[in-house]
Amino acid sequence: MAALPDIKACIFDVFGTVVDWRNSVARQAGELAKAKGVELDPIAFADAWRARYQPQMETVRSGKRAWTILDVLHRESLVAILPQFGLDGKLSEAEIDEFNRAWWRLDPWPDVVSGLTRLKKKVIIAPQSNGNIAIMVNMAKRAGLPWDVILGSEVVGHYKPAPQAYTVACRILALPPEQVMMCAAHNNDLAAAQKQGLSTGFIARPTEKGPNQKTDLKAEGDWTVVAKDFNDLAQQLGV
Amino acid sequence: MAALPDIKACIFDVFGTVVDWRNSVARQAGELAKAKGVELDPIAFADAWRARYQPQMETVRSGKRAWTILDVLHRESLVAILPQFGLDGKLSEAEIDEFNRAWWRLDPWPDVVSGLTRLKKKVIIAPQSNGNIAIMVNMAKRAGLPWDVILGSEVVGHYKPAPQAYTVACRILALPPEQVMMCAAHNNDLAAAQKQGLSTGFIARPTEKGPNQKTDLKAEGDWTVVAKDFNDLAQQLGV
Repeated sequence: MAALPDIKACIFDVFGTVVDWRNSVARQAGELAKAKGVELDPIAFADAWRARYQPQMETVRSGKRAWTILDVLHRESLVAILPQFGLDGKLSEAEIDEFNRAWWRLDPWPDVVSGLTRLKKKVIIAPQSNGNIAIMVNMAKRAGLPWDVILGSEVVGHYKPAPQAYTVACRILALPPEQVMMCAAHNNDLAAAQKQGLSTGFIARPTEKGPNQKTDLKAEGDWTVVAKDFNDLAQQLGV
Repeated sequence: MAALPDIKACIFDVFGTVVDWRNSVARQAGELAKAKGVELDPIAFADAWRARYQPQMETVRSGKRAWTILDVLHRESLVAILPQFGLDGKLSEAEIDEFNRAWWRLDPWPDVVSGLTRLKKKVIIAPQSNGNIAIMVNMAKRAGLPWDVILGSEVVGHYKPAPQAYTVACRILALPPEQVMMCAAHNNDLAAAQKQGLSTGFIARPTEKGPNQKTDLKAEGDWTVVAKDFNDLAQQLGV
């Protein structure tokens, strides 16, 4: 195995890699359904909401639409799916705003807080998520994620996997790309980062998309590090 | 005294309010002089460097110059003052880069880490400095500043006291301005924030500019809170 580059910062994908968005959104959808006296499949609700994530960002990435933060894209997706879950007309505008913040209240995978706390001793740790700052900072406060700085789409002005999402993050940190490790559970995120010269760390999250997940079950590229979880990542980086 | 607004975030001026830039830069200027075998007054060096801070930012604020981060403005100022301190031609480009990072290595006032640690239990804490992210994150790592998120000029795209420096910070946090407290040792910073509807916290730093400081010795406006130090600020906010 080749010697590791001198990693100075680990930047993280968040939805799926750091937090279990599916069960966390489902939990809150279940609570909402109960409060509104509606029957729905909470997991199907989470999946339906998330299914609109990439298409919504693509309207921005393609240039069809001016820069728009994820909280706004999420809200539009939420409004669009309410009818198919029997919630049409059942939420006030303020209740929609509030429920849209379900994405602020996602639970981390069990290894995340301890692993990040270890990594923070040696390197700068930051989310490089497509989520905007308010999502990330409120999620971190609730879950105890000890970020040094919040990067991501709103700071760099681009949605992953646009090349600038990675290059601007490195420029902002004043670090050469190889000293920045993009850490993610998604091979395509790492492939895009590697193309820009970043180091890469793969951490499998084989149940992110549920028990029948078919993709991203293992490393599919020549990543700098492949780790079992965030503590293993810390250990492999010598912390 | 009127009831305090429900403060959800405290955003901080950094140079002078959080860190003692003058003695910290002087310390490093003294080390540089020794290494280069040059005699100079380290405090005069710090003051000369800082004297170019506002004029440099003004070139950006006025629109004469495209957006430029503070690390770049600092470096130009450094190059400009080297001759008057006998350092002309004595530093390589790499040494100038390295010494420019003196602003990454500023020491906090003694009450800062404990006060921020208390405040962080209740509110979002963030620098809202004219410094760019690399300055802030490296300073925080070295000094142990427990920021939840780094805001400031590079994130909001404006130098204080431009109105947008304050309004964009609130928008990013998804908070109404009155729930965001701008905390600073400079009355003009607070006046600009108050004009945009933010709450304000004054903390005097009567030796920031040296033993003969004449300005900002006391609160000169109707600020929401006037605190002796960061621990007192935490106490007044009920933490």
